[in-house]
Amino acid sequence: MTETPSIRLFVDSALEAGAAVQLDRGQSHYLVNVMRQPQGAGLLLFNGRDGEWLCEIAAADKKATVITVMSRTREQDAEPDVWLAFAPLKKDRTDFLIEKATELGVRRLLPVTTQHTQSARLRTDRLHATAIEAAEQSRRLSVPAIAEPASLDRVLADWPAGRRLVYLDETGTGAPLAAVLAEGHDALGFLIGPEGGFSRAELDALRNLTFSVAADLGPRILRAETAATAALAIRQSIADLNRN
Amino acid sequence: MTETPSIRLFVDSALEAGAAVQLDRGQSHYLVNVMRQPQGAGLLLFNGRDGEWLCEIAAADKKATVITVMSRTREQDAEPDVWLAFAPLKKDRTDFLIEKATELGVRRLLPVTTQHTQSARLRTDRLHATAIEAAEQSRRLSVPAIAEPASLDRVLADWPAGRRLVYLDETGTGAPLAAVLAEGHDALGFLIGPEGGFSRAELDALRNLTFSVAADLGPRILRAETAATAALAIRQSIADLNRN
Repeated sequence: MTETPSIRLFVDSALEAGAAVQLDRGQSHYLVNVMRQPQGAGLLLFNGRDGEWLCEIAAADKKATVITVMSRTREQDAEPDVWLAFAPLKKDRTDFLIEKATELGVRRLLPVTTQHTQSARLRTDRLHATAIEAAEQSRRLSVPAIAEPASLDRVLADWPAGRRLVYLDETGTGAPLAAVLAEGHDALGFLIGPEGGFSRAELDALRNLTFSVAADLGPRILRAETAATAALAIRQSIADLNRN
Repeated sequence: MTETPSIRLFVDSALEAGAAVQLDRGQSHYLVNVMRQPQGAGLLLFNGRDGEWLCEIAAADKKATVITVMSRTREQDAEPDVWLAFAPLKKDRTDFLIEKATELGVRRLLPVTTQHTQSARLRTDRLHATAIEAAEQSRRLSVPAIAEPASLDRVLADWPAGRRLVYLDETGTGAPLAAVLAEGHDALGFLIGPEGGFSRAELDALRNLTFSVAADLGPRILRAETAATAALAIRQSIADLNRN
């Protein structure tokens, strides 16, 4: 193969040289019908455990394509230990948030219902599919875990004390996020409130936690998915800076 | 009025105490039919020049509502001198980019066509409407200007030499964005390439400019609208930090 294949797919199967992997119906349809890939065509597979592998189509079948795993192109790496807890939004904006959080390396997504949360209904299987597609396209080697929706009380009660909880406080009591993150924390979790903001009771509860800190994202009111994307991008930029 | 009205609208009219402002048909419909606001109801108006004003509905009419301007609630402030040049994307993602750029304070948006740009067709009037709505909801006091689409060559030829051009280079030659921005520049412009990336010729042209610098946004491949949102959020976070 002269160049790296542009098609990357996430699979559950173990990946090792010589292994045969059968794609599910959806991926087979995508590869054969949509992308029109013939037998012998190259692609990349990853499973979140074994790195990324150069593969080729052994048998193109629109329902059950079989792939031969050839050689490893990238070693498995770990995403930063960052969680994102968020109050579900309207469908499009929730999908967007999942996509952006995946692109920006979030390891675990936690949908939380708050007093002002708009949409309670949430299909985590659909969110998972959105995360897989974003991981495939962002060259990520893993897919973020997506927790079942839970109440904010529940999420805070179960929160690991060793993990810093940074909540974006629109009432402006927090320090600029970059200042909060400058302290440095390996295990981190962001909490983004609903469009309506946290309730007073929720803010009081958040302030009283030993592992929480309020952060501010600037002078304008950001939509929830903007705040999530901004917070994750700022964290990553600081991490990149410290790495160099 | 006991509390600040939640409805904010952008108008072109001059705003001063006692002035009467007639809303256009679309805003009148929104206020009267959608939000069901009666005569005497409060709202906020801004025009990008005179700050934000507390107003009330003098005559509710679904086609031509008249507003009385009462008192100024916020002085006009200037957004940071940041431009965003971007290659138009699919409709939803372009709308999203406009919305996020507005929330994050961009002063001027420049759609640029590149060799790998997907969609050439672009209705700047629709982008302007998207920017107005985002400004209204983000409590911004101005609406970003939106330039007519132009070729990258044209945009670079017309670029003011005193304005630093930071282009996000997916080939990874750039320093982390936070490091690039640490130098500090009052007048700044970001350039985000298309999903397909810049062509080799375009990258060569960008590298040869006296006012350009390449920046990197981390280990994963970000979608264009993610890169734009991330870059703007990182710039703002650094500015917020320096202000404190």
